[in-house]
Amino acid sequence: MNKNPIGVFDSGIGGLTVVKEIRKILPQENIVYLGDTARLPYGTKSTDSIIQFSLENSQFLLSRGAKYLVIACYSSTSVAIDIVRKHVSVPVIGVIRPGVKKALEVTKTGKIGVIGTTLTIHSGAYEKAFREIDDRCEVVGRSCPLFVSLVEEGWLEHPATQLIAETYLKLLKDDGIDTLLLGCTHFPMLMPVLKKVMGDINYVDASREVGETMAQDLEKMGLQHPGEDGTLAIYLTDLSMNFKEIGERFLGEAMGDVSRVSLGT
Amino acid sequence: MNKNPIGVFDSGIGGLTVVKEIRKILPQENIVYLGDTARLPYGTKSTDSIIQFSLENSQFLLSRGAKYLVIACYSSTSVAIDIVRKHVSVPVIGVIRPGVKKALEVTKTGKIGVIGTTLTIHSGAYEKAFREIDDRCEVVGRSCPLFVSLVEEGWLEHPATQLIAETYLKLLKDDGIDTLLLGCTHFPMLMPVLKKVMGDINYVDASREVGETMAQDLEKMGLQHPGEDGTLAIYLTDLSMNFKEIGERFLGEAMGDVSRVSLGT
Repeated sequence: MNKNPIGVFDSGIGGLTVVKEIRKILPQENIVYLGDTARLPYGTKSTDSIIQFSLENSQFLLSRGAKYLVIACYSSTSVAIDIVRKHVSVPVIGVIRPGVKKALEVTKTGKIGVIGTTLTIHSGAYEKAFREIDDRCEVVGRSCPLFVSLVEEGWLEHPATQLIAETYLKLLKDDGIDTLLLGCTHFPMLMPVLKKVMGDINYVDASREVGETMAQDLEKMGLQHPGEDGTLAIYLTDLSMNFKEIGERFLGEAMGDVSRVSLGT
Repeated sequence: MNKNPIGVFDSGIGGLTVVKEIRKILPQENIVYLGDTARLPYGTKSTDSIIQFSLENSQFLLSRGAKYLVIACYSSTSVAIDIVRKHVSVPVIGVIRPGVKKALEVTKTGKIGVIGTTLTIHSGAYEKAFREIDDRCEVVGRSCPLFVSLVEEGWLEHPATQLIAETYLKLLKDDGIDTLLLGCTHFPMLMPVLKKVMGDINYVDASREVGETMAQDLEKMGLQHPGEDGTLAIYLTDLSMNFKEIGERFLGEAMGDVSRVSLGT
């Protein structure tokens, strides 16, 4: 048993979709969240920069006593998780493997589509994760960068969103996938439009799987928090004009007090 | 006469649309361009951060001998130009006033629409600039954040782009503006779709006006470069996967060698 918090970081506030799921599954755990809003988005940055930012973020969470690290950012997980693991002594979970495992559990035909930002898809991190677990499946990746902006604009069911989804997903639909893996923190918000376009197939939102995997880990390692309602402390590296409005959309509850911190400067 | 370069900075590579126009009007001038790609976009950052970044960028260009500074970023111009002017001893031009002047020249009805990112529109910088020059005009602002992502995705004439443009511009069209001012480096790329939606009105792309204003300034101050073909040196604070492809779309020519520099860390 361990009262220390779970540390979660993301390039911005999209990772609050992961926090939302963790709080559902592990309501008694304290959480410290760091959103690196001063340097977002990571998806357009170089691998070197993302690695450096990920290490700085991890260091900050460890300085807040984190007993377990969650990399809630797909770009960071894609290129930096192995390096973060080498630098820290607590368990580290990313957002890629839990989703991959779940997709392999639910697929019947073995034809799986993955959508994410350009960096996540082109990094090859998903192909690698699938191959490591089961190399018989057929995985098709599609980068959908406009989905991020559409979610931040709040256009979740605008006709343009539907049109963009049809363009992005056409290839996956033609390929006859039976499972769609959502490889970006923002994409669960688009579930209604994705279902409209792709119809009756399996949808995997990794956020939920991260919570489940972590719950098992904490139990195995005896790291659970025994208390009552867990707290949530949110730190951001920059406070932009509309971060609260967007953040609470992701978190599904009030964000409470948010502190600004400086990293890497 | 002065052989030193003109220094231009932007949060990313969108400012190359401004460089393109400067090179048309002042082909003999040497240019040093700095794109702060490691910290883009500025439009979602706080005012304090944008001011700090703008000062660091200016300092870098001065260290490269800049005789004249161009702030090619609308977010920086909106919130930081007065502070940059206080900190440097060379002339500084932004992207807001030259466009405002041109819009006031061409409008007949005095009803002018301005489009830009959320920060640019909400900063009130345009209203202020219009009021300072001619307070009889009626200015309507509309933030169009999705336009930036659509340009970066290269979807310049996709049906979704048209649909998004119709949604964003509806209010301006209903208001009966006779002049549309493009307040973002990326937007000139969308000119065909803007014209389709808004029809036969005046369009002002500030990039061109910046070049014209600067040509007059350099002549007045005796700062012109007397030589032949000017050089272009490009510095970026991060090299992302597809910066060349997007950058050359903005610049309209090959980018040549690009150097990476670190700022503020």
